[in-house]
Amino acid sequence: MSVTTINILLFGIGNVGSTLLKQIEESRDFIAKQNGIVFNFPIIANSTVVLFQNADQQQAWETDFKRSSIPYQFQEILDFLKNTQLENLIAVDVTASDVMLGRYLPLVQHGCHLVAANKKPNTVDLNFYSLLRSELVVQRKQFLYETNVGAGLPIIQTLRNLYQAGERITRIQGVFSGSLSYMFNRFSVEPFPFSQILADAERNGYTEPDSRDDLSGTDVARKLLILARELQEPLELDDISIEPIFGETLTRLLHETDYRSNKQALNRYLEERKQQLDPDEVLRFVGVLDLEKRRFEVKLTAVKRLSALGQLRGTDNLIEIYTESYGRNPLVVQGAGAGKEVTARGVLSDLLQIAQLVKQREVVRISEVSG
Amino acid sequence: MSVTTINILLFGIGNVGSTLLKQIEESRDFIAKQNGIVFNFPIIANSTVVLFQNADQQQAWETDFKRSSIPYQFQEILDFLKNTQLENLIAVDVTASDVMLGRYLPLVQHGCHLVAANKKPNTVDLNFYSLLRSELVVQRKQFLYETNVGAGLPIIQTLRNLYQAGERITRIQGVFSGSLSYMFNRFSVEPFPFSQILADAERNGYTEPDSRDDLSGTDVARKLLILARELQEPLELDDISIEPIFGETLTRLLHETDYRSNKQALNRYLEERKQQLDPDEVLRFVGVLDLEKRRFEVKLTAVKRLSALGQLRGTDNLIEIYTESYGRNPLVVQGAGAGKEVTARGVLSDLLQIAQLVKQREVVRISEVSG
Repeated sequence: MSVTTINILLFGIGNVGSTLLKQIEESRDFIAKQNGIVFNFPIIANSTVVLFQNADQQQAWETDFKRSSIPYQFQEILDFLKNTQLENLIAVDVTASDVMLGRYLPLVQHGCHLVAANKKPNTVDLNFYSLLRSELVVQRKQFLYETNVGAGLPIIQTLRNLYQAGERITRIQGVFSGSLSYMFNRFSVEPFPFSQILADAERNGYTEPDSRDDLSGTDVARKLLILARELQEPLELDDISIEPIFGETLTRLLHETDYRSNKQALNRYLEERKQQLDPDEVLRFVGVLDLEKRRFEVKLTAVKRLSALGQLRGTDNLIEIYTESYGRNPLVVQGAGAGKEVTARGVLSDLLQIAQLVKQREVVRISEVSG
Repeated sequence: MSVTTINILLFGIGNVGSTLLKQIEESRDFIAKQNGIVFNFPIIANSTVVLFQNADQQQAWETDFKRSSIPYQFQEILDFLKNTQLENLIAVDVTASDVMLGRYLPLVQHGCHLVAANKKPNTVDLNFYSLLRSELVVQRKQFLYETNVGAGLPIIQTLRNLYQAGERITRIQGVFSGSLSYMFNRFSVEPFPFSQILADAERNGYTEPDSRDDLSGTDVARKLLILARELQEPLELDDISIEPIFGETLTRLLHETDYRSNKQALNRYLEERKQQLDPDEVLRFVGVLDLEKRRFEVKLTAVKRLSALGQLRGTDNLIEIYTESYGRNPLVVQGAGAGKEVTARGVLSDLLQIAQLVKQREVVRISEVSG
């Protein structure tokens, strides 16, 4: 099989980025043999420094990054693209950064396809969302972001396939946050105070660096927004209502004062919620997109202990898609919705899909020229 | 958006085929607007007659089919393709027929991509399987068959994406048959004899025309085989062991003598199995591909009533994919695994995926010529 080289600009070398590099390294021979594709990394960047690598790059990027990375302005990366004339470019955003927002359009204009784990570009205002999509069409570039919802779980592609094939989606609901799944799965059945389980989640790396990003519910609202927009619902983040986990006053207090020392304060409020449950109920942090009733919300909900949601374990997500053809029983996708391994694998899967398309185009070109 | 016409050769106009035509008709405008794709049906055939339609075909295919379809030899269809020089061809096999096996290679050689709901082409011997795939590569044609397993559920694509991205799959298991799901979900908790529930399943159209095709377990074994081959396991159907639902003697008896009048005989054997269950157990017809222990089997199994499998309802399938990254909790896909609506929608989704690729190639060609 002919081998196509795909040049990746990697932005972000945290958990997901470094795991992605490891997975690609481990699967290099397999991917070349199976798909006829080789991934190169001419650019590896974090928020402050960048490593420019030659095509004959060593596979020891970590050593090289420590030794040879240099502070950068984004323009230097664009200049590098212009000067090197590299082809088959994919820019990968595995940051959680707002800074990347300003980079998407220039990257596409400089010939890059896009793959993102970062949810921000799909959840800022609709103007940006539409502008980016127009530019992708003009430049004939792809943008995949399966890991935006449910990490490696096949949620976005499944929903898109159903919708594009004319299926009427009536409702999407479930547990969309790996970290909140973990916390409430444990809190609902264990005798420990919430603050202790939260501390465990933080220690295990299940939460964002500041766990308020999880607890605020905004992360789940972003995921709902991404799914709604896949269905061409012109919603903004504000259209998703979020019921604060800790009540409004307490949430404001936590944001204004020293969060770290106030985690104990969370316990009383949630303990009360727990006391109000029936014996056969547990608490779950649920997101709902009800497209018939136009109800879009994120909230802590009491569910039956023996229901599918009630039996969730670990950091599992569980997403139910109700459609006309599927009737009363939804299509359900369940599995780990967080974690560097599954997220990096999802990013790699997105990369392979675009790479295969690039390879197809190359084959068409070659056969048109020679045939 | 430019519009690309895709010409479909439809083989099979039973439940799935006629529903597919209805769904495409209902979504014609949406698909044209969303995807820039129009599906035409120059050829609609069942096992005995064919309708040849012009590009200006009416949308009332049923009337036309009754009035204008004619008996045919397959060669006439190939001649039609040669004479009309139609482009962008996809042959769709929504039969359950062995006869189609001999048609796949000639169709590909005459310029057709393939979409199948028919499981036979993927489950006859490995020689045919490999030969077909070689020819697809040579002719640069696609072959999609997502509905081979779990009807419209995203099983095959999910598995393929994981595998191609280098994920190590260790085990796949679950309930893979919509009809057997229905029968044992009811039988496990209702007081009725099995023959009565079987009769309901037949009446509701959940079974194959001859329900022994479901009860024999071969249909589930075929699905396991298809998944195994996606993972490049060179297995044949005989490598999947099937424990007969009714014990070997009874199964042989049913196949040899008059099945219809012997359904009562099923009851005693299954009633015994039911009596042997613990109070917290139910019966499920489970398929297992254990890739570590090299155990590939289909059998009636006692599972905990409160487990995910134990709580299945209706005709739901539930498929668990265990992998290295997903750890102890598998990736689970659940939902209706049979039914003409979900199956036709799955076929339509496959059609759209190939159509989009065809459109991409067309765009590349045009831009290369003009640019």
